[in-house]
Amino acid sequence: MKKLINEPSAVVDEMLDGMVAAHPVRRLDGTNVLVRDDVPVDGKVAVVSGGGSGHEPTHAGYLGEGMLDGAAAGEVFTSPTADQLDEMIQATDAGEGVLCVVKNYEGDVMNFDTAAEMASMEGIDVEQAVVNDDVAVEDSLYTSGRRGVAGTIFVHKCAGAKAAEGADLAEVKEVAEKVIDNVRTMGMALTSCVTPEKGEPTFDLGEDEIELGIGIHGEPGTERADMMSADEITEHLTENVLSDLDLDEGEEVVTLVNGMGGTPLSELYIVNRKLQSILDDRGIETWDAWVGDYMTSLDMMGCSVSVLRVDDELKELLGAPAETPALTVAE
Amino acid sequence: MKKLINEPSAVVDEMLDGMVAAHPVRRLDGTNVLVRDDVPVDGKVAVVSGGGSGHEPTHAGYLGEGMLDGAAAGEVFTSPTADQLDEMIQATDAGEGVLCVVKNYEGDVMNFDTAAEMASMEGIDVEQAVVNDDVAVEDSLYTSGRRGVAGTIFVHKCAGAKAAEGADLAEVKEVAEKVIDNVRTMGMALTSCVTPEKGEPTFDLGEDEIELGIGIHGEPGTERADMMSADEITEHLTENVLSDLDLDEGEEVVTLVNGMGGTPLSELYIVNRKLQSILDDRGIETWDAWVGDYMTSLDMMGCSVSVLRVDDELKELLGAPAETPALTVAE
Repeated sequence: MKKLINEPSAVVDEMLDGMVAAHPVRRLDGTNVLVRDDVPVDGKVAVVSGGGSGHEPTHAGYLGEGMLDGAAAGEVFTSPTADQLDEMIQATDAGEGVLCVVKNYEGDVMNFDTAAEMASMEGIDVEQAVVNDDVAVEDSLYTSGRRGVAGTIFVHKCAGAKAAEGADLAEVKEVAEKVIDNVRTMGMALTSCVTPEKGEPTFDLGEDEIELGIGIHGEPGTERADMMSADEITEHLTENVLSDLDLDEGEEVVTLVNGMGGTPLSELYIVNRKLQSILDDRGIETWDAWVGDYMTSLDMMGCSVSVLRVDDELKELLGAPAETPALTVAE
Repeated sequence: MKKLINEPSAVVDEMLDGMVAAHPVRRLDGTNVLVRDDVPVDGKVAVVSGGGSGHEPTHAGYLGEGMLDGAAAGEVFTSPTADQLDEMIQATDAGEGVLCVVKNYEGDVMNFDTAAEMASMEGIDVEQAVVNDDVAVEDSLYTSGRRGVAGTIFVHKCAGAKAAEGADLAEVKEVAEKVIDNVRTMGMALTSCVTPEKGEPTFDLGEDEIELGIGIHGEPGTERADMMSADEITEHLTENVLSDLDLDEGEEVVTLVNGMGGTPLSELYIVNRKLQSILDDRGIETWDAWVGDYMTSLDMMGCSVSVLRVDDELKELLGAPAETPALTVAE
């Protein structure tokens, strides 16, 4: 499989340098951690995230005003080390404390736990918010409990906006948990993805097969199915998301049709069309609809559907200004 | 090849409905034309564009304040009809005239010419700016003269910003032509793309081969080469772009590493790293670096490199506020 890379082992390093060359972010010396170039930001709680690489623009694409202060990149589909997470926490803390947004995968949870402990011993207030929005599985290959997937972007946005308002650490954490409580996601794949090191698909999938209930690390889904139309796929994903979220008629939501990296944007809009029609039929009001590649699995073809129940507070935070490489919201 | 679609013949129609369901745009009845939902915008020259589908987020992804007023979608890789282009011009004109941004492909040029004539007969001032930034070919399969490709995004941005400032039609056209005079692009493909109707690759390419000098309609490049590293590919593209643009040391540029649709963002950043290092070595100053999927060819893996020479006027216009689905610039 062909890729626009040099050495497979240099992919993360060179990608990070390419981001620094494009955006107002800097790299902490000797690490794979990128931070806003103005950290620590005086008087503000820091919001940081991190995880394996291969999910771009997650995580460093969300560095900037109104979202993240720091983003730690592990190797592809591998958690960053606790040491590097600790360095990120130390570099971003302005004395107001740090909220770590963690996706529920065992490696990430373990390393963020260790890092939080290390930073606490240095006198930094650290809190964590663990995202577990994937309705496809109760326990998975890499988690106990549900996995954290694309709904994490809403957590970055709302916690980042709350911190930008000057809220304290407890308040920022509370908002993050409110988003986590109200967002659900389910994904599917038309194809596997190819990691740079392995150079071949992470699982085999026939020309007439798809995987339902995938995670974001190239693991197969919970169910293999025959190829379906976009409308059927959207119904399946949305049905699972909605039955778990338990929305009442008249409630408002923000939706995300997220591409897995190799899917044309046109196809994501076809999914969005059906998603909005399903919500409409149920009397659920879409306040905003996001469509695009927000959290990917390298070159995988496929998508996930996320639905977030919103109230006035979350709408205000989602609509608040943000200025990052991957997401800008104008005032 | 699997796609997230329903009927191949419904792809454009359903994609457009999916965009309307997500963004503040509306569809002109009975057409494949999307417009800002507030057109015609009083007191402002309208800036419109269009072309084949399959290039998303081009064209409708750039509808909004500070960029486009209208975007016409043809079938995949096929020009919109003159009738629909005429309807777009009529719907967006606020009495100040309309600038059509046209990529140099024979079908587009012919249909925009006809539409401009039709609209002129209705008393609308119409001007055109034909983009021809592709340095790979002098005449191509689908053009006489150079093709218009990803550099078009800079034309949308600058002409849109100039119109938003209240400039008149001649001034908006002048800015568009200034961008066209100062931007060059070259692209390459690791893989072909698969159109919904055909369902198979538009050209064959071996596991160890790449195409250099591709356009954006699934046509092969000007040269087939053995697989190269990302750095070698970037050198080749950049060399061709720079030798045509003839920059002096100390000049400022804005760069665009554009993904063709199926390439992970991480790989585009690896290309950007090398691009910036080449510019740096030559004493050319990058004022801003754009990286992402701005003008695609469905699921093609590959990228293009664009370089735009900028002066104070173009920097101001590129940095001016814009609020569109695919590109937002905060004040």
